[in-house]
Amino acid sequence: MSLPERRFLRACRRQSVDRTPVWFMRQAGRYMEEYRALRKRYSILQLAKTPELACEVTLQPARAMPVDAGILFADILLPLEPMGARLRFAPAPVIDNPVRRAADVRRLKDFDVEEGLGCVFSAARLASRALAPRPLIGFAGAPFTLASYLIEGGPSKDFARTKTFMHEQPAAWDLLMRKLRRVTADYLAGQVRAGAQAVQLFDSWIGALSPSQYRRFVLPHSRFVLTAARKTGVPVIHFGTGTAGFLEDFASAGGDVIGVDWRVELSQAWRRVGARGIQGNLDPALLLAPRRELKKAVQDVLRQAAGRRGFIFNLGHGLLPQTPVSSVKAVVEWVHEYSR
Amino acid sequence: MSLPERRFLRACRRQSVDRTPVWFMRQAGRYMEEYRALRKRYSILQLAKTPELACEVTLQPARAMPVDAGILFADILLPLEPMGARLRFAPAPVIDNPVRRAADVRRLKDFDVEEGLGCVFSAARLASRALAPRPLIGFAGAPFTLASYLIEGGPSKDFARTKTFMHEQPAAWDLLMRKLRRVTADYLAGQVRAGAQAVQLFDSWIGALSPSQYRRFVLPHSRFVLTAARKTGVPVIHFGTGTAGFLEDFASAGGDVIGVDWRVELSQAWRRVGARGIQGNLDPALLLAPRRELKKAVQDVLRQAAGRRGFIFNLGHGLLPQTPVSSVKAVVEWVHEYSR
Repeated sequence: MSLPERRFLRACRRQSVDRTPVWFMRQAGRYMEEYRALRKRYSILQLAKTPELACEVTLQPARAMPVDAGILFADILLPLEPMGARLRFAPAPVIDNPVRRAADVRRLKDFDVEEGLGCVFSAARLASRALAPRPLIGFAGAPFTLASYLIEGGPSKDFARTKTFMHEQPAAWDLLMRKLRRVTADYLAGQVRAGAQAVQLFDSWIGALSPSQYRRFVLPHSRFVLTAARKTGVPVIHFGTGTAGFLEDFASAGGDVIGVDWRVELSQAWRRVGARGIQGNLDPALLLAPRRELKKAVQDVLRQAAGRRGFIFNLGHGLLPQTPVSSVKAVVEWVHEYSR
Repeated sequence: MSLPERRFLRACRRQSVDRTPVWFMRQAGRYMEEYRALRKRYSILQLAKTPELACEVTLQPARAMPVDAGILFADILLPLEPMGARLRFAPAPVIDNPVRRAADVRRLKDFDVEEGLGCVFSAARLASRALAPRPLIGFAGAPFTLASYLIEGGPSKDFARTKTFMHEQPAAWDLLMRKLRRVTADYLAGQVRAGAQAVQLFDSWIGALSPSQYRRFVLPHSRFVLTAARKTGVPVIHFGTGTAGFLEDFASAGGDVIGVDWRVELSQAWRRVGARGIQGNLDPALLLAPRRELKKAVQDVLRQAAGRRGFIFNLGHGLLPQTPVSSVKAVVEWVHEYSR
């Protein structure tokens, strides 16, 4: 028999569950009053780097509602700082010394994650204990998404600099991705040592690429990280948005569970990724819709996953800051109720 | 035998061609020095609304290189002004009186396109004559993309307001889409009367939606426009980005030719859209890459289209402003050379 607190991990391993597990990307964040209250006193980086505060933020949604897992509060860009990036939030992330040439790549530091990211591991230790028996999910940005921030110096609409870098300086790109994949693998392993019972690799902007760009410039590096993460023994979720055009390739890089966005139909996703778990894929904008519409959409996601092992209910991307907390709570309730 | 100047229209009709036709979205635009010189003296709206200037801009790329069609210089938001939207460019488009409630939708004016958009038709008359024997492509924004600008008041990252509007006020959404589809159909018909020999419907932001949102909130309205456009007798291109997750649905709305972006593999696109022409799908960022990489990418697109009737070479979205003119010219040359 499956205990409620095991639901999430059992689903990751495609074992039977009593209910569909549910958690939300960005479940710790701006839509919660408790989070906004902390943000009045601390910057994002202060919250993320102070273990007690990061632990507190991680726990906020878990206290407010019966989500089946917590995700460590951190930012995907944290590992770039000890590599040498000057990171600030204004409020979107800005890197003041972007990577533009091979010399910039060579200058990126190799560092010991226990030293450079020890604060995150401390937060994970605190949060995993406080969350128990519910599991803590650790996470990291995938090499492509991290590289795009380093090269663009912030978010981008067309990723023109990143793509130009790939095509113009393939050797420097390869070196950059190798540096990032090693840091990322070590970073995830450290989070597992600190108590994370699953990890998710976020390739948030991978949908900017064509299938052939993905295969050539990204896949081997994501595979490196996912293979290393798997060796830690915990389940690995591989998430990306905009992957509808190359979902088979994306899945082939690895991951026990593939995270998909709302742009791909779940029934199609199951067919395309093969014997894996699937996580997703409600459009976050639906949590701003009237309750009736939201409920129908939740039921529709559950219907597409019905009878399949290895399904984890989530959104297709992070919760929007303007989301009402009551809608988030309602989704948790419905997922548990309708998946009985 | 197929004359070079008939290539584009023959490909639209899936007839044999001597070479693969090629044109570029935003081929009239900022990457050209001639265009930037005019923009120093005139705003975008002045250029688009002054027939002689719009004609001149339309001709600039056709003079500079042997593209197989010209596309009328205009902006997809022009029809919103006579409907009552206060439109300006800063430099991204801003609508100062966005549509937020049903009353705002009701207030949108029905207008006679010959009156409200006569300047565009005059430009089309001048440009179609000046371009001949090469064909002029007319175009319009699709109802969803226009609605998203009206509701968001400009470009958007997550289209949260637009989606919330759909879900919260489905009757107002329906009325909005009906108003937009009628204007759009009339606008395209007017361009054909003025000499456009093909038309393209741009659903640039449709990739924000899920397949089910597309089917329910957009497809019937796009179908209305595409069906009306088809009755004008000229070939119709139906373009969208981010359609990899629902390409079958997108194609089922209509279009003799389906325009796809680089996120979907052409070989997949052929299989999924059935007996249609395909237009696409080079990543515009590749025109910033070294010549060697660009050439390989052009050859790869042509290889995926080899042996198929009804292929039109284009990008997956518009030319980026920082694109070197020499790269654009090289692509035209290679497409003609390698498709012989």
